[in-house]
Amino acid sequence: MRSPVPDSARERCAALDAADPLAGLRERFVLPPGTIYLDGNSLGPPARDTADRLHEAVAHQWGGDLVRSWNSAGWIDLPARLGAKIAPLIGAQPDEVIVTDSTSVNLFKLLAGAVRRQPGRTLILSERGNFPTDLYIAQGLIDQLAEARRQPAAGAVDGPHDKQLRLELVDRGDLPAALAAARAREQAGQGDLAVALLTQIDYRTGARLDMARITADVHAAGGLVLWDLAHSAGAFPVSLGEAGADLAVGCGYKYLNGGPGAPAFAFVARALQADFAQPLSGWMGHATPFSFDTDYRPAEGIARLLCGTPPILSMIALEAGLDALHAAQPLGGLAALREKSLRLTRIFAQRALERAARHGLRCVTPMTDAERGSQVSFTLPDADMAHAVIQALIARGVIGDFRAPDILRFGFAPLYLRHVDAWDAAEQLADVLDARAWDAPHFLGRAAVT
Amino acid sequence: MRSPVPDSARERCAALDAADPLAGLRERFVLPPGTIYLDGNSLGPPARDTADRLHEAVAHQWGGDLVRSWNSAGWIDLPARLGAKIAPLIGAQPDEVIVTDSTSVNLFKLLAGAVRRQPGRTLILSERGNFPTDLYIAQGLIDQLAEARRQPAAGAVDGPHDKQLRLELVDRGDLPAALAAARAREQAGQGDLAVALLTQIDYRTGARLDMARITADVHAAGGLVLWDLAHSAGAFPVSLGEAGADLAVGCGYKYLNGGPGAPAFAFVARALQADFAQPLSGWMGHATPFSFDTDYRPAEGIARLLCGTPPILSMIALEAGLDALHAAQPLGGLAALREKSLRLTRIFAQRALERAARHGLRCVTPMTDAERGSQVSFTLPDADMAHAVIQALIARGVIGDFRAPDILRFGFAPLYLRHVDAWDAAEQLADVLDARAWDAPHFLGRAAVT
Repeated sequence: MRSPVPDSARERCAALDAADPLAGLRERFVLPPGTIYLDGNSLGPPARDTADRLHEAVAHQWGGDLVRSWNSAGWIDLPARLGAKIAPLIGAQPDEVIVTDSTSVNLFKLLAGAVRRQPGRTLILSERGNFPTDLYIAQGLIDQLAEARRQPAAGAVDGPHDKQLRLELVDRGDLPAALAAARAREQAGQGDLAVALLTQIDYRTGARLDMARITADVHAAGGLVLWDLAHSAGAFPVSLGEAGADLAVGCGYKYLNGGPGAPAFAFVARALQADFAQPLSGWMGHATPFSFDTDYRPAEGIARLLCGTPPILSMIALEAGLDALHAAQPLGGLAALREKSLRLTRIFAQRALERAARHGLRCVTPMTDAERGSQVSFTLPDADMAHAVIQALIARGVIGDFRAPDILRFGFAPLYLRHVDAWDAAEQLADVLDARAWDAPHFLGRAAVT
Repeated sequence: MRSPVPDSARERCAALDAADPLAGLRERFVLPPGTIYLDGNSLGPPARDTADRLHEAVAHQWGGDLVRSWNSAGWIDLPARLGAKIAPLIGAQPDEVIVTDSTSVNLFKLLAGAVRRQPGRTLILSERGNFPTDLYIAQGLIDQLAEARRQPAAGAVDGPHDKQLRLELVDRGDLPAALAAARAREQAGQGDLAVALLTQIDYRTGARLDMARITADVHAAGGLVLWDLAHSAGAFPVSLGEAGADLAVGCGYKYLNGGPGAPAFAFVARALQADFAQPLSGWMGHATPFSFDTDYRPAEGIARLLCGTPPILSMIALEAGLDALHAAQPLGGLAALREKSLRLTRIFAQRALERAARHGLRCVTPMTDAERGSQVSFTLPDADMAHAVIQALIARGVIGDFRAPDILRFGFAPLYLRHVDAWDAAEQLADVLDARAWDAPHFLGRAAVT
């Protein structure tokens, strides 16, 4: 069923690999043989030394120096140290980033702190297609604050100034218009935009927002911007500082390869740190945690974003992932990785469409380089078919994922993927469609977790 | 300098060890040779198979099945599975406990949810000597809600019903009186107690609160009780269910031996779960996380306490710790461990006082069994001396810790400590004092983290 393409096309991919200065980085990761792993945007693979580092941490640090390892092994410094390692990946200063908790918990801290800095402003603007946890956290915060305001005033009648915080969701395409409208209200002295809560890369389509332009638009409307960098950090150079971004969160287990549920990071621009108040004021964010004071006094700077005791073993795994990524630095770093990522996604999308458009395969990822992240997403005429095709591909060792309602999603991590992987994955996708290999009961059943 | 005690006293300890059915459990832990580890109440040691389990998780689960391990290795079930393993240790039902986030983050969730259930009630009652993070979290929540109420009403004048949530701190000894006063207000139709936020075991002194009695007192005053079980869970049988407790949190890295910063647990009594609303409404607490809905809808039951993606590697280490603890089950379980713990603390305290009271050593831990946890705490005439004595003991391999302002703290985990350890540690403590071995510059400097 192969279409009549000259072998030379795959050979050109092999030649790109042979000439790729980044090719050697693949050896730093554990990847099962016979697998083309295109789900590193959901869970990156382990760096090769992760298991050894954890063994060292358990057997010699924890099991040897026991509680003293908080100092002797530098555990206590891990949140700041890992933050400083993430900072250059996202265009931040080392003292603007800290690793702690999960993305969701950090969203709550930053959103609560942002809303608090914007008294009288009631609008949290986000996208309808934002990753659900971003929306859920905003809903939880709004609901909590609304309820709190109702409670103590029971019996009192709400006054005319009694405006509730609200979440407005717009389609991604309508963001510029929504921000222009917010700006017009601002200029009319009726500014209401508190925070724009935006994810740079759409988790379904891989479409990328222009961080600099949108940040400027949000600021012009009087708002703060909170960027979710889940599918950005480690995938391509992010420029929080250049864009003048205020706040950001990001994920440790996708392109940073930190392991399942790896701790997340939080970014607060220096200018906002001094009086940034976040409600999860746990002891690790105290100015002097080990003086065991009765009253909370936030640490200077980014450390006030800490809450409880950090999960050290998971942080050690994340450090292994970060160090593997930093090995790209002398080879051109994220800029070179970005170039490669664009090639990989282009090869994959073009070849897949070339062979499988006739099956109704449609690419929903922008092919303009500046407008996409590091993934390619397709749809097929039928959602169940899309899900079954992913299952059939997984059975062949090509691991992508399905995202409701109907997305076939393929992440391309340039750290460990080859150009031939992109080519071969497209061929496999087309083969599965050509042969209707997906049309079997064991592929058509929907998985509980996909 | 040895006082004239017959060798037979230590021999009696050795005989207790020889007859101890729990003695074999020590082999399940990694403990460095030549060390008597009395800081397991700060960080428990690793279970012997922890390193292997992590290696399996990294090399074969994460590195083999990659993202599919969320299902194939049961990662997605870990929060509930570990919760069910903790439940019998604290007198809870398996569906009342979940492992997630840190103790501090869980305190915020439960306290916010509790306050919300108690409209019109403004008092959070706690102890002045409570562990700082408990107080800091309460302060953070109160501050957040107060600020939220000020903001939208800017311009409006607060009405007479405008009562702010407040934190009242009393000394531990004054708790009964404070609860009696709250009950009197309740009976007079002026009940204001929202939540009592209490830690069962005082982290400094090791004194233990009567959970059943205090829970009843809180309920009689119209309040909910939130128990912090940091120094309780895994140390002795806790009876949340019998006591009718409402809410609880606890720590994974002390007597549960889950590793540095191990994920914590949260307990919500069944009766409160159905409409329990907590503000950290992340995607893992959604009824159907993988349908990627736009609107948050909490999961049924305890799963709504989840927020973001859990740190799996740290959870796997915690499971190893829990399994090692459960190995005590056929040997009498926590009841037998409690008996042993009481013997260990008694031997240590008695012998240390016998030899070192003349140096001003004073025990601040109650020697009435029902009134203490699993630790012994002393003071000395001078805080710097107390700190230096701890350092000198550590140099001799007896690892306790110093807690500001002046506490020498020794935790006794009956899972892996021997009766001779309790005896020998007391001898070492007395020897250090007899010989003034602590009075050296390298011991007198205060450590950054103690």
